[in-house]
Amino acid sequence: MLIVGELINASRKAISEQIEARDEAAIRQVARNQWEAGAHYIDVNAGVFVGQEGDYLKWLVSTVQQEVDAPCCIDSPDPEAIEQALSVHRGTPMINSISLEKDRYDKLMPLIAGTDFKVIALCMSDEGMPETVDARLANADRLINGLLQNNVKPGNIYVDPLVQPVSVNKDFGMEFLKAVERIMAGYDGIHTICGLSNISFGLPNRKFLNQTFMVMAIARGLDAAIVNPLDRRMMANIVAAEALAGRDDYCMDYLKAHRAGRLDL
Amino acid sequence: MLIVGELINASRKAISEQIEARDEAAIRQVARNQWEAGAHYIDVNAGVFVGQEGDYLKWLVSTVQQEVDAPCCIDSPDPEAIEQALSVHRGTPMINSISLEKDRYDKLMPLIAGTDFKVIALCMSDEGMPETVDARLANADRLINGLLQNNVKPGNIYVDPLVQPVSVNKDFGMEFLKAVERIMAGYDGIHTICGLSNISFGLPNRKFLNQTFMVMAIARGLDAAIVNPLDRRMMANIVAAEALAGRDDYCMDYLKAHRAGRLDL
Repeated sequence: MLIVGELINASRKAISEQIEARDEAAIRQVARNQWEAGAHYIDVNAGVFVGQEGDYLKWLVSTVQQEVDAPCCIDSPDPEAIEQALSVHRGTPMINSISLEKDRYDKLMPLIAGTDFKVIALCMSDEGMPETVDARLANADRLINGLLQNNVKPGNIYVDPLVQPVSVNKDFGMEFLKAVERIMAGYDGIHTICGLSNISFGLPNRKFLNQTFMVMAIARGLDAAIVNPLDRRMMANIVAAEALAGRDDYCMDYLKAHRAGRLDL
Repeated sequence: MLIVGELINASRKAISEQIEARDEAAIRQVARNQWEAGAHYIDVNAGVFVGQEGDYLKWLVSTVQQEVDAPCCIDSPDPEAIEQALSVHRGTPMINSISLEKDRYDKLMPLIAGTDFKVIALCMSDEGMPETVDARLANADRLINGLLQNNVKPGNIYVDPLVQPVSVNKDFGMEFLKAVERIMAGYDGIHTICGLSNISFGLPNRKFLNQTFMVMAIARGLDAAIVNPLDRRMMANIVAAEALAGRDDYCMDYLKAHRAGRLDL
């Protein structure tokens, strides 16, 4: 399971204050904590700072990479901000994200084409969020083919079928899960990813619902996630679900987590 | 989700002692606790008492039904013991279980044929436990057709595809999950059920693994389970997974569980 640590996001108040204050120590600590908890990529998002997003993203990338030897997941809908962040990034980043929205697609694709970047392909189009499995699959198909035609390797493509709240429509959870399953079955080497907190919007005990939905998504084939790696139960759920899904040879990772006390919740 | 409370099982030492001592108060309490925690059926098993199993099962059924207005899940491989238990059972029981093992099949089918009993159909044959999805499906198909031909309604059939430990073979979890999904998709009205603790055999933190696997099985369509209803996290996982799987209109059961403090873990 590929884990993207989601905490360095300016939509969180503490982070936005740290970014504005250029509080290097604080950001470095959040990066280190996530890295040590098992994040493979550190997401950086400065989306709330309209007009300054590119500058702040550059600073975030540099600050994170001074602290940990981790690639960043560069999180912006703005191709120019992403380009600025890329100019200082060491190693191979993940781009979060391309979609079918025309302007975003047309501007981002040239940045990604022919590179070895990992890229999140969001099943969103100018017509909005897809609600059914078929609509998700249609968008996924166009994105995957577009990326492949632009010489992005299948193994670098992470499709996000987009989670919507079960409080709005009780079928939204299953529509997402079935989309994950069909994408994983239908495209060799392609990955699926999501940020799943939207599933629990409008309901109590959101954290528990999110932790539970992660297990369900792994049961259907999800192999990457944008999560808070400091959420111990979320990480324990992932390691257990991976073992139960047959993705952990001899349950080695599970046993390692057990010995390290990471299953003591 | 149909819940069968598993605690009154003579393979548990305390229960076998209570059965031998004919400790009515103790058994009644275990029945009541499970009923109040949400069990729809109370499993009764006296399998360790060879030669006396039928007598003890009769006593268990009577004792349970003196305390709670619940049907029993009569748990024995022995058709004669089941027949004895049926003689005192009020209401419509669940039979646990028929299988393809010839002797068991031939003797149990006449007891079940044409009744409104619910029946667990264990995907086991005289060739032993099936290991692959296809072997499970082949057994399920023979059992389902046999029961239908004997005038058992589809809605009364609960197929148990049999869980085997992931510590033995890392694919055993997925083979089971895929079998659940294919049975639910392939047979209209038929249910799936399992006792899932076998999944975690040989691994540490078994309870946590079992709780996690339950969520995965619900994600693949499982709609009944033999569990300990006093395991608060197991029951919370079930209510959350059901809401996330779109089986809980307006998330009413989830919200009810929340208000009743059943999600406070």
